[in-house]
Amino acid sequence: MRELHKFFYPEKVAVVGVSQRKANLGRNIISNLLEHEYSGEIYPVGPKGGAIYGMRILTSIEELPDGIDQAVILTPAPTVPEIVERCGKKGIKHIVIESGGFDEYGEQGQILASSIKRMLAQYKMRLIGPNGIGVINTENGLCLPFPNLERVSPGATSILSQSGGVGISFIQEFNTENIGINKFISIGNKLDVDEIDLLDYLATDDGTKVIFMYLEGIRRGRDFFEVLKRVKKPVIIFKSNTSNLSAKIAHSHTSALVSDDRVVDTAIKQGGGIRVSEVREMINLAKIFKLPLLKGKRLAVVSRSGGHAVIAADYCQRYGFELPDLPAEVLDRAENRLRAKVIKLANPMDLGDLYDVEAYRMIMSDIIKLPDIDGIVFLFTYFSFYDPSIPEDMISYIVDLAEQYKKPIGLCLLSWFAEEQRLKKLFKFPIFTTTEEVIGALYRSHEFYLRRGQKDETAPEITVDKFRVKKLVEGETLDEAKLPLLLGQRAFEVIKRYGVKTAESVETSTAEEAGDVAEKLGYPVVLKATSAKLVHKTEFGAVILNLDSKEKVVEAAKNLMKRISDKAPDALDDLRFLVQKQLKGSELIVGSKRDKQFGATILLGWGGVLVELLKESVLRLAPVSYDEASRMIQELRGHELLGGFRGGSPADIESLKDAIVRLSILVHEVDEIAELDINPLIVTPNGAYAVDCRIVKSTVDEGEF
Amino acid sequence: MRELHKFFYPEKVAVVGVSQRKANLGRNIISNLLEHEYSGEIYPVGPKGGAIYGMRILTSIEELPDGIDQAVILTPAPTVPEIVERCGKKGIKHIVIESGGFDEYGEQGQILASSIKRMLAQYKMRLIGPNGIGVINTENGLCLPFPNLERVSPGATSILSQSGGVGISFIQEFNTENIGINKFISIGNKLDVDEIDLLDYLATDDGTKVIFMYLEGIRRGRDFFEVLKRVKKPVIIFKSNTSNLSAKIAHSHTSALVSDDRVVDTAIKQGGGIRVSEVREMINLAKIFKLPLLKGKRLAVVSRSGGHAVIAADYCQRYGFELPDLPAEVLDRAENRLRAKVIKLANPMDLGDLYDVEAYRMIMSDIIKLPDIDGIVFLFTYFSFYDPSIPEDMISYIVDLAEQYKKPIGLCLLSWFAEEQRLKKLFKFPIFTTTEEVIGALYRSHEFYLRRGQKDETAPEITVDKFRVKKLVEGETLDEAKLPLLLGQRAFEVIKRYGVKTAESVETSTAEEAGDVAEKLGYPVVLKATSAKLVHKTEFGAVILNLDSKEKVVEAAKNLMKRISDKAPDALDDLRFLVQKQLKGSELIVGSKRDKQFGATILLGWGGVLVELLKESVLRLAPVSYDEASRMIQELRGHELLGGFRGGSPADIESLKDAIVRLSILVHEVDEIAELDINPLIVTPNGAYAVDCRIVKSTVDEGEF
Repeated sequence: MRELHKFFYPEKVAVVGVSQRKANLGRNIISNLLEHEYSGEIYPVGPKGGAIYGMRILTSIEELPDGIDQAVILTPAPTVPEIVERCGKKGIKHIVIESGGFDEYGEQGQILASSIKRMLAQYKMRLIGPNGIGVINTENGLCLPFPNLERVSPGATSILSQSGGVGISFIQEFNTENIGINKFISIGNKLDVDEIDLLDYLATDDGTKVIFMYLEGIRRGRDFFEVLKRVKKPVIIFKSNTSNLSAKIAHSHTSALVSDDRVVDTAIKQGGGIRVSEVREMINLAKIFKLPLLKGKRLAVVSRSGGHAVIAADYCQRYGFELPDLPAEVLDRAENRLRAKVIKLANPMDLGDLYDVEAYRMIMSDIIKLPDIDGIVFLFTYFSFYDPSIPEDMISYIVDLAEQYKKPIGLCLLSWFAEEQRLKKLFKFPIFTTTEEVIGALYRSHEFYLRRGQKDETAPEITVDKFRVKKLVEGETLDEAKLPLLLGQRAFEVIKRYGVKTAESVETSTAEEAGDVAEKLGYPVVLKATSAKLVHKTEFGAVILNLDSKEKVVEAAKNLMKRISDKAPDALDDLRFLVQKQLKGSELIVGSKRDKQFGATILLGWGGVLVELLKESVLRLAPVSYDEASRMIQELRGHELLGGFRGGSPADIESLKDAIVRLSILVHEVDEIAELDINPLIVTPNGAYAVDCRIVKSTVDEGEF
Repeated sequence: MRELHKFFYPEKVAVVGVSQRKANLGRNIISNLLEHEYSGEIYPVGPKGGAIYGMRILTSIEELPDGIDQAVILTPAPTVPEIVERCGKKGIKHIVIESGGFDEYGEQGQILASSIKRMLAQYKMRLIGPNGIGVINTENGLCLPFPNLERVSPGATSILSQSGGVGISFIQEFNTENIGINKFISIGNKLDVDEIDLLDYLATDDGTKVIFMYLEGIRRGRDFFEVLKRVKKPVIIFKSNTSNLSAKIAHSHTSALVSDDRVVDTAIKQGGGIRVSEVREMINLAKIFKLPLLKGKRLAVVSRSGGHAVIAADYCQRYGFELPDLPAEVLDRAENRLRAKVIKLANPMDLGDLYDVEAYRMIMSDIIKLPDIDGIVFLFTYFSFYDPSIPEDMISYIVDLAEQYKKPIGLCLLSWFAEEQRLKKLFKFPIFTTTEEVIGALYRSHEFYLRRGQKDETAPEITVDKFRVKKLVEGETLDEAKLPLLLGQRAFEVIKRYGVKTAESVETSTAEEAGDVAEKLGYPVVLKATSAKLVHKTEFGAVILNLDSKEKVVEAAKNLMKRISDKAPDALDDLRFLVQKQLKGSELIVGSKRDKQFGATILLGWGGVLVELLKESVLRLAPVSYDEASRMIQELRGHELLGGFRGGSPADIESLKDAIVRLSILVHEVDEIAELDINPLIVTPNGAYAVDCRIVKSTVDEGEF
């Protein structure tokens, strides 16, 4: 992605669409560049010419000198394609278009967009936009947005936003909290460069330590996921446009597509990204990632207010933090500094009426050294009375401590507003202002620490003749190829190839044969009717359990056939009986659906009628590693039941994991499968067995062209 | 509660513990009173005498003139009881103690607290504190906290805090947001006046429109609930100390008790209060309650940024709001003002590049008049370029519109920080700064509107001989009285008295008898073993279903007896067989537990082994009305199952409600019941029947003395 480098580090920038008029937006771009002391050369271009801020406005692209790295265009949409072409001829390789009126503006706009795309290909140019507000790089003062901006405070977080308006309000919030921005990109309609290209670029950008993204749509979902998995920096993602209500407005706004939000959410988490849905949360994360990561769950809370210590303890419990006892010598040293000697200190440490910054330094330093403390929460209530230089020194001391011991110190300042603002401006060290936010942010820091460690996990390889399996799914005869579904034994064939165990079962066409088969399998057996026309077998009573003799099997099969001929005569055409050895164990569902943007997914849920309605399930993108499968099981609500309940035998968890992993590889590798459902997968004390399986084939005529 | 009035409206206040020393905290109280221009007379008292701020410091209580309404005491704990006594002798009826060192300080402190309590009784005084920071009333400038405060901005919300430190940070936040405070009370250890007295007082206080409470413990839970139910103003409650980790620190801090947090949560919601657990959330609620309540779920979103409109639509969907189409004439009038005429406006209305405050006024005014719009969200992105007087005029206009049409307009200002601050200072009208917060707050406003309407619901009366039922629970013979539990038919007897239906069943002592009974009941039947020693019958296989002949019943009973004599021979002593007609329907649990602070509760959950482990249940304080029972059912996850699933018959919901209501009245009225469990209650298409019931008696020796 080195080809994107010049978007951020151009030496000569042309701004196209500048005039002397006060309301001219191009003029604002020049003023933003000057305000941020851009270190390169600036060339204003506008048909009316004249001069601005002491610079001559060139009247055409052709007048530009050679060697322009980048052109920023802000002119009416219909004029843009020609300007792009002239830039191409001039040898300019990087274009930023801020004008609106393209994809998001109906047919006419789409025509303009297509012609721009042609130019890009013809002249080998890259484009950011249109319909965005451009690029900022605080390292060299490049600042291309057209709204007038306060000076953007430099730092190590980079922001990518699909909406200019939201992007500006983020810059605003970052400035207020003095978090510091390294790069900012408003990707607009992403006609060429998109979030994936930029994520890839920022991943290795030296100035960027933390990446923020505001997205309304993700087009190349699987690519996004793959890139995200590789990034080791924290990537914080605010993905909106999750609802029917927003879909329409989002389309007219940035021509974003709606994705299945659950899949998006899964992709972000599994890729090791951090999803947020609130601005406050985002700001708190930006703050916490300025500190060393929290590597464990053991905190010390030091507070100057008992009430805030109580709130802190509640939140520690909520997030599963421990508050280990502190060593007697640390407590003694602190107690010796208290006015009222009767107080016994603990963790949380309520310092009550101790107003002594020297003592705080000592306490912080004593605690951070402790090997069984992973981080500190310091609730610094600070009202009046004291030399205002004192907190500064103490905060500087804390900054150093955190850095030195590579442990986070979450500083929550509870003071009067002006003082909070003053100190925030003074320190790049993050200052929180509510107890719950500092603890919540530490939790996210630890979560990221754990997830980062999982980024290198991969699914195992399975030796299998993939071509053969694909053929099995597609169908080997013309008749088979026409069927949209694979059921019963044919579906079993597919999953068996990938090493998934199935319940011992035989398919027959007549009731008598079913009885014979049952004799061989041993009792009790289950009898099922299979037909492409029967989707919910339970509705037709088409699954009969607990059959313990040949007579019962034959009788049941006959009854079944009668019921089906009454209620669903269609189904008689391809009706077959499946006789299965009845298994005892936990009933789960393992399923998969291919998402248009993110590819194959894998789902684990409870089976059975009731729990299906409670809709408990866990989702991942396929394929998954054994560890990921293990986490899926842990996430499933009620998973303790698998360990054996009220004296029952524990289910064979290893086999369950194995089945999940193998199925996830199957659906990932065989894209002829659109959907797959194993319902139930029965997990016995000795193995997990697919008892029923249904595969929906991918079709090419889903109207996707 | 008129007797509390003088705490807020004293005409003459004595401040005890004042000296000329700079570090003297009593001196700060005087300075706070002067800073807030207290309208009454101030009398400093301190043994060393002298003068301060031009006032003479009296050297003893006795020197005070007659007619002092209130004494504020801030002296070392051991000196306080005597000062209180002297105040009593002087005829002072209202005491505020800010000193710490009482209940929260071990045995010695408790002795001091007891002697103060004696004085209060002897001299008929009321006390706020100790260990708090006193009282503020912005109406008359009464400001008693000892920390130096910025001038508290007056308004219509009153704050009650159990922690001084948390209270001060709340005042701080309210000031920053210019919400405005009417009264503030730091209740500290609440040795006398507690949150219930004060809630009762504030409920009818003219100056208070919204009540905030920060609580660490609620001692008289049921009283609190009853008072809360009567208050028609919004009561926002931040209840901390919910965890094991916080319990210890909270006790040493304000001697607060831990309550079962789920019961506290239920009591607050059912009482029509609003629980928060985050400072931001609290501030957002304080803001939204300055506006008219949101009476319906139909919103219009007007935005100057497409991205923020997308986020707004997501949050509208998340909270179940509707965004109705706006009439063509309203849209047309707005479109005529746009620069780019190609945009088609809708709801959310993305005004894009329209920067025209006149047009906003017109749009707001057009929309608020619409009968099918209940409120407006206005996302006002506003960056530079314009005459700063313009937003002021527009905001003033919006303020009037909201008032005139009694509909809330949630104004979210997205601007640069200094401008946000400037406008917040200028208007008491709430200004939000994130999209998600304004919509979340509107949701809570609507929720409160609905709950307030439920405050007048009451449980019906049931005609029943309560004395007889109490006797039944206690036991009529000495032997019965000794048993801690009521099981089987004896428990059924109790619930039947309150009109709860039970499954037809007969108790027998022998297997043969069980067979005879089954013949009479009709098949299939269920056979159960009952004994006080068998708690989970399923573990012993002590419930046998689907028995369809006399022989099977007798055989099953014999097997059962054998199994029990093997595994739990103890249970043979009181073993009986219960033969029950087997019912088909949804299995639920209805239970109750008496909470020490809040009294009897009523719980509804799913029955059956699996779902019990999933821990889905809904809780209320007993008794409940039919409407409340109805809401309980609606809240139960998966309640749609009761409507009939995949062709099953729908359960009799009216009977289920009836059973819940009747049981809730029973456990409320009969306090001899400590716990009651009906597991399962089977809800058939024709009635809800208790199938098994277990009652635990209240004991007097729980170590509660």
